[in-house]
Amino acid sequence: MNPLLREIRHNPLLWLLIFVPAVFAGESLSPDAHTLLFVLSVLAIVPLAALLSHATESVAAKTGDAAGGLLNATLGNLTELVIALAALRAGEYMLVKASIAGAVVTNSLFMLGASFLLGGLKHHVQEYNRASARLQAGLLFLATVALLIPSAVGTIDTAERAVFIHTLSVGLAVLLIVAYGLGLLFSLGTHREFFGSAGHGEDGEAPWPLGLALATLAGVTVLVALVSEVFVESVQKAAEAFGMTPAFVGFIVVALVGAAAEMASAFSGARKNRLDLSVGIALGSASQIALFVAPVLVLLSYVLGPMPMDLQFWPGAVVMILVSTLTATLMTNTGRSAWFLGALMLMMYLIFAMTLYLLPPRAQ
Amino acid sequence: MNPLLREIRHNPLLWLLIFVPAVFAGESLSPDAHTLLFVLSVLAIVPLAALLSHATESVAAKTGDAAGGLLNATLGNLTELVIALAALRAGEYMLVKASIAGAVVTNSLFMLGASFLLGGLKHHVQEYNRASARLQAGLLFLATVALLIPSAVGTIDTAERAVFIHTLSVGLAVLLIVAYGLGLLFSLGTHREFFGSAGHGEDGEAPWPLGLALATLAGVTVLVALVSEVFVESVQKAAEAFGMTPAFVGFIVVALVGAAAEMASAFSGARKNRLDLSVGIALGSASQIALFVAPVLVLLSYVLGPMPMDLQFWPGAVVMILVSTLTATLMTNTGRSAWFLGALMLMMYLIFAMTLYLLPPRAQ
Amino acid sequence: MNPLLREIRHNPLLWLLIFVPAVFAGESLSPDAHTLLFVLSVLAIVPLAALLSHATESVAAKTGDAAGGLLNATLGNLTELVIALAALRAGEYMLVKASIAGAVVTNSLFMLGASFLLGGLKHHVQEYNRASARLQAGLLFLATVALLIPSAVGTIDTAERAVFIHTLSVGLAVLLIVAYGLGLLFSLGTHREFFGSAGHGEDGEAPWPLGLALATLAGVTVLVALVSEVFVESVQKAAEAFGMTPAFVGFIVVALVGAAAEMASAFSGARKNRLDLSVGIALGSASQIALFVAPVLVLLSYVLGPMPMDLQFWPGAVVMILVSTLTATLMTNTGRSAWFLGALMLMMYLIFAMTLYLLPPRAQ
Repeated sequence: MNPLLREIRHNPLLWLLIFVPAVFAGESLSPDAHTLLFVLSVLAIVPLAALLSHATESVAAKTGDAAGGLLNATLGNLTELVIALAALRAGEYMLVKASIAGAVVTNSLFMLGASFLLGGLKHHVQEYNRASARLQAGLLFLATVALLIPSAVGTIDTAERAVFIHTLSVGLAVLLIVAYGLGLLFSLGTHREFFGSAGHGEDGEAPWPLGLALATLAGVTVLVALVSEVFVESVQKAAEAFGMTPAFVGFIVVALVGAAAEMASAFSGARKNRLDLSVGIALGSASQIALFVAPVLVLLSYVLGPMPMDLQFWPGAVVMILVSTLTATLMTNTGRSAWFLGALMLMMYLIFAMTLYLLPPRAQ
Repeated sequence: MNPLLREIRHNPLLWLLIFVPAVFAGESLSPDAHTLLFVLSVLAIVPLAALLSHATESVAAKTGDAAGGLLNATLGNLTELVIALAALRAGEYMLVKASIAGAVVTNSLFMLGASFLLGGLKHHVQEYNRASARLQAGLLFLATVALLIPSAVGTIDTAERAVFIHTLSVGLAVLLIVAYGLGLLFSLGTHREFFGSAGHGEDGEAPWPLGLALATLAGVTVLVALVSEVFVESVQKAAEAFGMTPAFVGFIVVALVGAAAEMASAFSGARKNRLDLSVGIALGSASQIALFVAPVLVLLSYVLGPMPMDLQFWPGAVVMILVSTLTATLMTNTGRSAWFLGALMLMMYLIFAMTLYLLPPRAQ
Repeated sequence: MNPLLREIRHNPLLWLLIFVPAVFAGESLSPDAHTLLFVLSVLAIVPLAALLSHATESVAAKTGDAAGGLLNATLGNLTELVIALAALRAGEYMLVKASIAGAVVTNSLFMLGASFLLGGLKHHVQEYNRASARLQAGLLFLATVALLIPSAVGTIDTAERAVFIHTLSVGLAVLLIVAYGLGLLFSLGTHREFFGSAGHGEDGEAPWPLGLALATLAGVTVLVALVSEVFVESVQKAAEAFGMTPAFVGFIVVALVGAAAEMASAFSGARKNRLDLSVGIALGSASQIALFVAPVLVLLSYVLGPMPMDLQFWPGAVVMILVSTLTATLMTNTGRSAWFLGALMLMMYLIFAMTLYLLPPRAQ
């Protein structure tokens, strides 16, 4: 267990692991202290996500480029998936959808924007390989269209509409997963020479041995699942206590918690003038949520949820996803960046966050 | 008649000409067998469209660059125009509008996407001249705005609104035709050196003598008009028999039938690594439908139709046109292509087709 | 006063100054002749705006690059600001909002399009520095999102909604002003080497002495304010007399009157093959209206207006702003231009103008 302990000693983020037992203790001692449980579970999820992320990359590093890329591409957002599954099983579909939409927006505006800003404050102008940004932006655009269409075809007779939306959602989910698979085939297979090394590994960190990595992957996933249940139970009531709207919680709080570990990598890459890495993590993560996590949740809802979940989003969320995707596409178009680009994207994220924070609850 | 017979012998598509007499026989023998008549008329229109297309290009080849380009630009979608006129005279305005919207979407997503995919499966990376793509994308964007505006300015008092929409539609139709003319002046006149040879002729096919070409043009147009009447009469009832929604028929079936001949040329160009040709046919055809065929139909409806037709489209159709145009613009931005671009565009087309197929009829 | 008189003698536009006393004479003699007062006040504002513009640039030229750029950036649309303030104090919020939206659309479509067309009719292909266009387009896009969001989050309970919209509008106004300031810091400060000399000065015109410039600035601002009051009082009734809708007046007439002086500079730059200058004036002016003038008006409405003004626009106006911004972004993407680009943009402007002209008054 030496490398795991060494990792924990060197990475201050992992000291937060102390909050994992604290969550379980808290839940058995005072199960109604929602605000306390919410804060503890957030503080526990962040280091667990960092461990999951490092374990996934270690397995990927051992299994070679193509298989490793595939693994990263399916397990890279395991934290988000596990949190969403906990919400799905609890029947909290509003929260699931808000966290999907929020993760796409947070990854493509906040994570990318903050990377541009942090990198740009240190380096005057930064250049990066556009190929990966283009691929992910194209996939994101497809996903945005898939989420836009159910709202665009208009409102009709309720009973007929429900059947239509559910059938359409299953069809869209299958199409999105196929498109995601084709994207992997393209970037890891037929045209991998265009994509450089952007997708893999944080430099300077040695991968763990395979056995340790696999054991960590399994054990930590179980821990994330257990903590997520506490998180999902407490988040709505804690939000009320803090005066936050449900939309703000799902969109902003859950998305930031789920993506904290990847953000640490993306920001560190930007400071080291390795923007390829940051852009790859931010947009890759956004398209993975939209084309893999979201459709998998729709399909799993038929097995795990109290009733089927569809892919129809609140119009405001569709607009925000559309704007984020379009912004990320336009901003990564030139392969160059400076601090102002990042500031513009963070401003846009602030506009969304402020709107959701102020929005009266019934309007969502 | 030697070149015409030789063409028929070498082009398997033209063997379908046998269905032209079959349609007329079928209509006089069993005028109520709608499904049979529908299938026969589809099979008859495809080879007639191919003949029309070849005749137009032969005349164009004889009349020199500028006049030939002009001819191609006005008669290149003669099949679509004749089918739409048959629907217009029958007062089937829903079908006319669906087929206009469907032709724009089919040409800019399906034809272009399949060209990228087919070309990309054979060639690793393909390059092409962006000038033509930019021009057509700009024109398409203008047309999209023109179709968007009547829906965007909001709903009002019905009587006033009807007058407003009709006056506005005539104004928009005139503006679109003027813009189309300016585009021709730019690409065939003042700046033709930027547009290469992309627009003209399928290589390897000798043009016919002028007399034969003109006679074919006249004769086949009459045949297409006659078959189109059978097609328009039978399509709705046949669609019901196949379980298709009217929107799906207009958008997808009519658009694919009308564009079959051009698709053959575009796909063959892509396989031969002449993507300039494919992009020119696909986007040129889409912008011709939007800026020439659609406005001409609006103006002709005052003469031929039972009542004036306007340019206000079902909101779902406007969204699909907007997405297609934006996608074609972004995808042709770099002048390079690989199979994955094509796959993405076909996925988007599939999303639209699936939505229209599932849509309950009353929602359209 | 020699330079001021010389300027007036050489610039035929300034002969219109004769209409300034005519407005005041007209108002005291026949205060109900709205059509006459409207025409006189339009003819008086145009030369005053030209004087304001030249005085601002003269002060800017004396105060060095950074301070001068800042001055241009805050006082460059002083005419629009003063007109809008007159309307704000009169409680004409519809007119204020229409003139803001119209100024953004007119600057980014009409002024830019006409510059491309006029330059392109004289020069075959024109090239310009894209950096400035990119910066302004990014800022404009941010502003568009800020104006879009209040409409996108849906309609709800009226009382709650009013509070929400007003709080949100103040927040958005502050964010937009901060973003505008960051844009200035970027283009005049940290990265000014990318922005060339595009923003400053019309060549060939000597700047005035500082004293004269400051005196002109102060005196002419007062005159514009006085004439604007006559203009705002008379415009609505004059519009009825001319058969124009209120939306058309605010969007098109007020915007063209307010921007007449800048247009003269932009068009002259385009004819002299200095498109950098034209693009900088057109897009810089549009983003200044959206990110500085509009938010300042929202904040000032709490002090000067009969009640607070919000940033929620009529959906048709939001669509027009969105289309204009997107068009300007796509059209300035390559850094090259020819007459056809300009013609396309003017066509789009014509579509908007025609729609607003025909729109029944109650629909706005």
